[in-house]
Amino acid sequence: MPALTLDPLFADDDRRKILRSTDFTGQDILSVSQFDRDGLEYVFIRAHEMREMVDRIGYSNLLKGHILTCLFYEPSTRTSASFIAAMERLGGSVIPITQGVQFSSVSKGETLADTIRTLEQYSDAIVLRHPEIGSARIAADYSSVPVINAGDGAGEHPTQALLDLFTIQQELGRIDGLKIAMVGDLRFGRTVHSLTRLLTQYDVSLRFVSPEILRLPLVLMNEVKDAGLNVRETHDVADVIQNADVLYVTRVQKERFSDLAQYEEVRGHYEITAELMQHAKERMVIMHPLPRVGEIHYSVDADPRAAYFRQVRNGMFIRMALLAMVLGKA
Amino acid sequence: MPALTLDPLFADDDRRKILRSTDFTGQDILSVSQFDRDGLEYVFIRAHEMREMVDRIGYSNLLKGHILTCLFYEPSTRTSASFIAAMERLGGSVIPITQGVQFSSVSKGETLADTIRTLEQYSDAIVLRHPEIGSARIAADYSSVPVINAGDGAGEHPTQALLDLFTIQQELGRIDGLKIAMVGDLRFGRTVHSLTRLLTQYDVSLRFVSPEILRLPLVLMNEVKDAGLNVRETHDVADVIQNADVLYVTRVQKERFSDLAQYEEVRGHYEITAELMQHAKERMVIMHPLPRVGEIHYSVDADPRAAYFRQVRNGMFIRMALLAMVLGKA
Amino acid sequence: MPALTLDPLFADDDRRKILRSTDFTGQDILSVSQFDRDGLEYVFIRAHEMREMVDRIGYSNLLKGHILTCLFYEPSTRTSASFIAAMERLGGSVIPITQGVQFSSVSKGETLADTIRTLEQYSDAIVLRHPEIGSARIAADYSSVPVINAGDGAGEHPTQALLDLFTIQQELGRIDGLKIAMVGDLRFGRTVHSLTRLLTQYDVSLRFVSPEILRLPLVLMNEVKDAGLNVRETHDVADVIQNADVLYVTRVQKERFSDLAQYEEVRGHYEITAELMQHAKERMVIMHPLPRVGEIHYSVDADPRAAYFRQVRNGMFIRMALLAMVLGKA
Repeated sequence: MPALTLDPLFADDDRRKILRSTDFTGQDILSVSQFDRDGLEYVFIRAHEMREMVDRIGYSNLLKGHILTCLFYEPSTRTSASFIAAMERLGGSVIPITQGVQFSSVSKGETLADTIRTLEQYSDAIVLRHPEIGSARIAADYSSVPVINAGDGAGEHPTQALLDLFTIQQELGRIDGLKIAMVGDLRFGRTVHSLTRLLTQYDVSLRFVSPEILRLPLVLMNEVKDAGLNVRETHDVADVIQNADVLYVTRVQKERFSDLAQYEEVRGHYEITAELMQHAKERMVIMHPLPRVGEIHYSVDADPRAAYFRQVRNGMFIRMALLAMVLGKA
Repeated sequence: MPALTLDPLFADDDRRKILRSTDFTGQDILSVSQFDRDGLEYVFIRAHEMREMVDRIGYSNLLKGHILTCLFYEPSTRTSASFIAAMERLGGSVIPITQGVQFSSVSKGETLADTIRTLEQYSDAIVLRHPEIGSARIAADYSSVPVINAGDGAGEHPTQALLDLFTIQQELGRIDGLKIAMVGDLRFGRTVHSLTRLLTQYDVSLRFVSPEILRLPLVLMNEVKDAGLNVRETHDVADVIQNADVLYVTRVQKERFSDLAQYEEVRGHYEITAELMQHAKERMVIMHPLPRVGEIHYSVDADPRAAYFRQVRNGMFIRMALLAMVLGKA
Repeated sequence: MPALTLDPLFADDDRRKILRSTDFTGQDILSVSQFDRDGLEYVFIRAHEMREMVDRIGYSNLLKGHILTCLFYEPSTRTSASFIAAMERLGGSVIPITQGVQFSSVSKGETLADTIRTLEQYSDAIVLRHPEIGSARIAADYSSVPVINAGDGAGEHPTQALLDLFTIQQELGRIDGLKIAMVGDLRFGRTVHSLTRLLTQYDVSLRFVSPEILRLPLVLMNEVKDAGLNVRETHDVADVIQNADVLYVTRVQKERFSDLAQYEEVRGHYEITAELMQHAKERMVIMHPLPRVGEIHYSVDADPRAAYFRQVRNGMFIRMALLAMVLGKA
C-alpha cells in the first residue's frame, strides 16, 4: 500500500509548488516578482474573505495583540491610512511613525539598518515607505520580523499592484482573456510597471496609450512580448475605448514636457470624460491609483464602471490578507 | 379597541418629533442648527451616561471594531486628542491624520471630495478639521459614512458648542432661567456665536461684555432678540459679575486693536481675577474654551467655580455620545 | 495566639520598607532618585514577567480600556515608539502627540500646566518629553494622573537608566560585583549620569573612559566616591577592555572639540571594533543607548556580546512594568 506511505500533499510537483508559493508566514513582501499565479490566487482568496468579513461583521480579532510599525520616511496619507485600517480591522495595533521622521533621532545620522533593528524589538511586522530604491530589501535583510514594502522610491510598491490586479478580478470575475489598456504616463508610472509585470503571468491583451515621450520602457515591453501577450501601443485613448475591459488611467504630468504647447496639444488624448465613456463597453471598469488631478473628469464618477474608489477599498482587503499571511494567521 | 392598533410611540405629534430629532444613526454632525431642544436633551442624556460609565468603569466595548478617521488639515491637539480619547474609551480605533496633512499626497492637488471618498473606504466615521468655511458640508455630501465637523474655519465647531452647553447643564443642573454672560471677543469668537445660537432655544438672560470694536455681530444680536430673550451689552465684566450664573470668557487679542493704547486701556475690563470673583455668586461657573493666555488669572484656578478643565472633560463625553449616536450604538 | 492578630506583612521594618518602595500606584516617575534597591528589584521582577509574557503570548489585557497620552515637545521616535508598544502590548490605547506639537494650539502661548490639565481629562497617564529641565516636575505637580518623564532636557530620562540597569541584570544575572566601564562623552551624556547614580546603590567597580574635556562631572564623581565604590578614570578604552563586564558606550561628538586635530587624535580611543573585542572577556556585554554614529563598528554587531538591540527590547519591558505599576495593575 504505497499510497499510505506517501504524503498526499507532496504526491506531485504541482502540489508542492502551490504549497511553497502560498505559505507566507514570516516572509517579507518586497516585490511583485515574489508572486506566481498560485500565490496571487491565494492572496486574492484571502483578500476576498477579508472583504466578506468586513461587509458582514466589520472586524475580527485575528491579529489581536499584534503590533505593526508603519515607518514612513515620506508622507503618504493614503497608503499609511490603508495599512493602519487593515491592522485595526483585524484587531491589531499600530505604532504610527508616518510624519516628520526626517526631524527625529531616527534620521539623525542613524542607518536604516539600525532603525529597523530598533523598531523590530517593539513590533511583529514593519511597513516601510522610503525614498530610496532598494531600501525595503535592506530593511528586510536586517529585520527578524516581516517587512512589507510600501514604496521604495523608483523601485516597487507591490501592495498597490496586488490591489490593482485584485480589483480587476473582483470587478470582472476573471483576468485571463481580458483586454487591458494602460493610459497616461507609462514611462515613469511605478504602478503601471508593477501591474504590467503581474499581468505577464496571465493570458491578457495589453494596450499601452501614452504620448511619445512617455511610452512604456523597452525592457518592460520586451518582458510583455517574451510572455507571448498580444500587445499594441497607441497615442490616443479613443483608439482603445471601444474594446477595453479595463482602462487603467494615470496622470500625464505637465512637467514632463519641455514644450508646453506639445503638452496642450496631446493632453486631451489621455483624459477620460463622460462623453468618451459612451463609446466604452457596458461591462468594463475604469481604474486609477489616485490621487487624480483632472485626468478622469468628475462627471465620470457616477458611472457604475468607475471603479477607482472601490479599488481603494480593495487596497485595505489586500493589506489585511497580507498582514494575516505574513503573521501566520491566514 | 383602537388603542391596540395605534402604535403608542406615534400617538401624537410631540412624540414623533422627539423620535425624529433623536435618531442620529448615519447622520452627519455639521452645525448646531441641527439640534432642537429634544435633540440637545437626548445628546446630554447620552453624554451623562458616558460620564458615569467612564467614572465607574473607565471604558466600554460599544464601538469595538469601529474605525474613526481624524482628518485635521490644521493642527488642533486639543480637539483631535478629545476625539481620539472618545473613540478609544468606547473600544474603537482611530486613523490619526492629525499632523502634516499639508505635506502629503492628500493635499497635492487632490480635492477634498476625493480625499473623503478615499478615507471613507477605510473607516466608519470621519472627523474633519479644515480651514475653509463650508468644507464639512462638502465632505458630508460626498461621504457615505457620517462626517463630524471639528471646525471649518470661520464656520462652525458644533461639538464645542454642545460641550459648552452640556457643561452649563451639568454644573448648574439646568439651563432655563440662568443669567449667562459672554465676555471678551464676541465679534470673531466662533464658540461664542455657536453657543449663543444654541441658547436661543432656552429661556435665559444674556449679557454680552466686550470692547466696542469686538461687539457681537448684529445678525446674531437680532436672532437673540427675535427669540425674545432678555439681553444687554456692556463694556466691563464688573457690570455683570454679581448676577451672572455663567461667565463664558474668551480672549481679547491685542492684534484686533489698531491703537495699542486703547487695548491697554480696556484689557483689564475683560480679565477674571480672584479679586473680581469675590463679587460673584457662590454658586456660578467660569467657563473658557481654552487655550487661555492670561484672561483668567491662575489664582482663579483653585476656585471651585472655575469649570474650564471640567469643561474639557465634558468634551470627551459629548464626543463619545455623538460617535455612539451616529454609528447607531447609542 | 498573637501571630493571628499580627499582620505578617508588617511583622518587621524591613518588610515595611519593601512595601513602601514598591507601591507605585498613582505615582509619577520623574527621577532615578525615586528608586532604592528594593524598588529597582521590584521593577526588574515586573519587567522580567513582562518579557516572559511577551515571549510566550505576545500581549495581555492588563491595561485594557486605559489611555496613555504621549506628549512629545521634541520628536523622539525611539522613545515614543517604545512607550506606544508598551501600552499596546498591555491592551491599552494611546493618544499620540508625538510630532509637530510646536505647530499646534498646545504650544500657542499655552502654559505646560494648562496643557497637562487639559490632557489629563482624557487619559489615565501622561508620558512627557520636553526640552526644559524641570518640566516633568511641573507637569506632575499639576496632573492628577501619573506623569512619566521621558526626558526633560539636560535633566533626567529615568526610564532609560532603568532599562540600562535592567539589561545588565538580565544579561549577566547580577549587578553586585561587576566591573562596569562607561566610555565616550561622560560630561554631557545624560544616560551615563543617570545610570551612574543608580549604580551607586550597588557594589560595583566603575571605570570612566573619556577624553580629558569630556570627563565625568566632579559632583557625580564625588557621589561615586562617597558611595565607597572602586573607581578609576582613563583616556583609552584599551585600558579597560580586558577586565570589563560591561562596556557602556556613548558617542564622542566632534562638535565638542574646538581643535579638530585633537578630536582626530583621540577618537580611536573610544571606538569599539571587532579587533578590540578580541581582548575582552568571553562573558561580558557591550551596551549603547543608541542611536550610534560609528562609535561601535558594524562588524561588532554579530558578536553575541553586543547587547544594544536587546537593550532596546528591554526598554519596552521596563515601560510595560512601569505603566502597569503606576496604573495600579502590577
